[in-house]
Amino acid sequence: MSDYRVGLLGHGTVGSAFDRLLAERADAIAAATGRRPRLSGVLTRSRGSFEQILEDSDAIVELMGGLEPAREHLRRALEAGKPVVTANKQLLSQHGDELFAAAREAGAQLRYEASVAGVVPVIRVMRESFAGAHIEKVYGIVNGTTNFILTEMARTGAAYEDALSRAQELGYAEPDPTEDVTGKDAAAKMAILARLAFHTSVHLDQVPYDGVQEITPDDIDYAKELGLVLKLLGVAERLEGGISVRVFPCFLYGGHPLASVLGPFNAVTLESPAITEITLSGPGAGGLVTASAVLGDVVSVMSSSGMQLEPIEELPLVPGTEVESAFYLHLEVADRPGVLAETAKALGDNEVSVKSVVQKGLGANARLVMVVHPVREGHFAKALEEISRLEFLRAPPRAIRVIEEEFV
Amino acid sequence: MSDYRVGLLGHGTVGSAFDRLLAERADAIAAATGRRPRLSGVLTRSRGSFEQILEDSDAIVELMGGLEPAREHLRRALEAGKPVVTANKQLLSQHGDELFAAAREAGAQLRYEASVAGVVPVIRVMRESFAGAHIEKVYGIVNGTTNFILTEMARTGAAYEDALSRAQELGYAEPDPTEDVTGKDAAAKMAILARLAFHTSVHLDQVPYDGVQEITPDDIDYAKELGLVLKLLGVAERLEGGISVRVFPCFLYGGHPLASVLGPFNAVTLESPAITEITLSGPGAGGLVTASAVLGDVVSVMSSSGMQLEPIEELPLVPGTEVESAFYLHLEVADRPGVLAETAKALGDNEVSVKSVVQKGLGANARLVMVVHPVREGHFAKALEEISRLEFLRAPPRAIRVIEEEFV
Repeated sequence: MSDYRVGLLGHGTVGSAFDRLLAERADAIAAATGRRPRLSGVLTRSRGSFEQILEDSDAIVELMGGLEPAREHLRRALEAGKPVVTANKQLLSQHGDELFAAAREAGAQLRYEASVAGVVPVIRVMRESFAGAHIEKVYGIVNGTTNFILTEMARTGAAYEDALSRAQELGYAEPDPTEDVTGKDAAAKMAILARLAFHTSVHLDQVPYDGVQEITPDDIDYAKELGLVLKLLGVAERLEGGISVRVFPCFLYGGHPLASVLGPFNAVTLESPAITEITLSGPGAGGLVTASAVLGDVVSVMSSSGMQLEPIEELPLVPGTEVESAFYLHLEVADRPGVLAETAKALGDNEVSVKSVVQKGLGANARLVMVVHPVREGHFAKALEEISRLEFLRAPPRAIRVIEEEFV
Repeated sequence: MSDYRVGLLGHGTVGSAFDRLLAERADAIAAATGRRPRLSGVLTRSRGSFEQILEDSDAIVELMGGLEPAREHLRRALEAGKPVVTANKQLLSQHGDELFAAAREAGAQLRYEASVAGVVPVIRVMRESFAGAHIEKVYGIVNGTTNFILTEMARTGAAYEDALSRAQELGYAEPDPTEDVTGKDAAAKMAILARLAFHTSVHLDQVPYDGVQEITPDDIDYAKELGLVLKLLGVAERLEGGISVRVFPCFLYGGHPLASVLGPFNAVTLESPAITEITLSGPGAGGLVTASAVLGDVVSVMSSSGMQLEPIEELPLVPGTEVESAFYLHLEVADRPGVLAETAKALGDNEVSVKSVVQKGLGANARLVMVVHPVREGHFAKALEEISRLEFLRAPPRAIRVIEEEFV
């Protein structure tokens, strides 16, 4: 039986987990594919020559992270016609055009399951199971750190900072959590998913994102009264006139399939006319989990003659103001006659229609929590601006998007 | 660009949906794979020659259903080295040994995503994403008809017969629903999943199954008090000494990922040490959905050099009496002193330990609803037999399995 030589770039947490897993599963993979995979070389900061590894390998696995020299190495490998497997979401979301073009020109495979949602096989399912379908929308929970934080806040009533500390203690958040909590990590993943779903070029810079740093326990508590659960969602969808790709905190109804995705788990829902929708969920990260996704890609590369991606189409990004969303709106107001009427007028004047309201007295003040039906976001922003100028307001209004859909 | 010739056996609901979908997506598939798929022949009861179609095709798609002549045709196609895509769960669960052996010997691909859970890509994910992992357990909701019935009973309080009629009205149940409601359809699917998960031979006859016909609205109501949701589950797992593959109605805690799978949807959870667990959910059936899964397999066959399955291992089936399960137990008893003590004694004598109890008076009678911790099923059956002989019992005891696991 012949060997299948894998050149490994990077030997940190994921790289070393991959190294172990490959050795452990080599027999089973040999039985399944007819070739025995083995490492032909490892490149780290201190050892190994990329040139030598490239020459000695049937495929390159990149687990070094960061933009350079990963970008240069992968471009070289693809140009040499070698299949490449990577988990590098920064790289793909910022230099995807260059790398996918190199893969296409050389007819080389570029696989990246581990770059999005860990072991949840959303890339594979989109590439293969949905190859016969037209994808309308891809959305979900693609960052485990923020999902852990929001789950913890909902479960214990903790403040954001305390939930973040807990996530750091448990290893679900980095010492510097900026990329995760700002939503930037999720935005990179959504750029990758949107490219694949819509066969169009999407760069990280084109994906607006909001994070979870400003979520308060109050937001979560009041929303509970309306039967809502808070998640940080990435949403990529086809709209009239183009596509929209964004990341934002969002309330879901309790029966929504994503509402029960808890802790550090990830989940992605794909919508297509031919299949209605499917949801994939599982652990989003961790060395072994990521290594397992990478190994799945290596096995695919070994047994596949490679599939070209569909030609790239230019699809404009629809401005956020033209996207329709439902919103949760939370107002602290003086408790006196006319307040609800004036609020309702500001909403109505801007075509915002109210779905449900909870009002509660708090001594001289009152709290008004409402959910409005889907409306063009530009209109809602205008209503919000008018409301924030009303003199009875006791604190800045808080607005969070809501996915209204209810199931069965 | 060269054509890829697909021979289609069967042209009923799914076959004609496949025919349309193939034409609709041919351009996109040609762009992705470099070959344009087209039908090279269609076999129905009244027209077409299998011999001619076999000769004229690069791959055979079987959507005729039933055992014969599907079995003979697929064996012939595989022996001729042609890739085969089928949605036929009856055939695979009863003649899998023969067909997989034929595929292995000829080095031909045999794909069957659409045979289990419709468009939910559980077969692909097990074959490919999990090729680098060791699967411990596969379980889930693999029959949409019964999930619709149970969802309807829970939602409206309807009796089983009424929920079934509703399912028939909406096209979610056949005029003769026997295969679905008895659990036999789910058992066939679990035989297929177990074979793939554990690389062992599993025949439909080896899968014990219970259905939903005897579920009462009371079962669902009382369980709600304990925070439980009823589902018909298929469970295939590795145990000490072998594997267990079964189908049974089962209560889940409300936070379980399968608890929120509603209506005709299917969902499957895969557990493996390397990836903890992933859950895949989506619509379970329907002509277009099934056709879409079949087309996904055709695209894979077109772009893959084929992967052999791992060698078959002989794994014994562990008897049900030796499997451990938690149970929900519902007793109608005379409301007098000593009843709880005697019940508890019968349980304790057989190593059954109680997790929670709800007792309610009903005039002269009382209702005792309890959940017991996981216990060897043989022990529980013995306890149940002793309890059913207790003279204060007013109706036969009702016992339903429970998946206890709670999340995060």
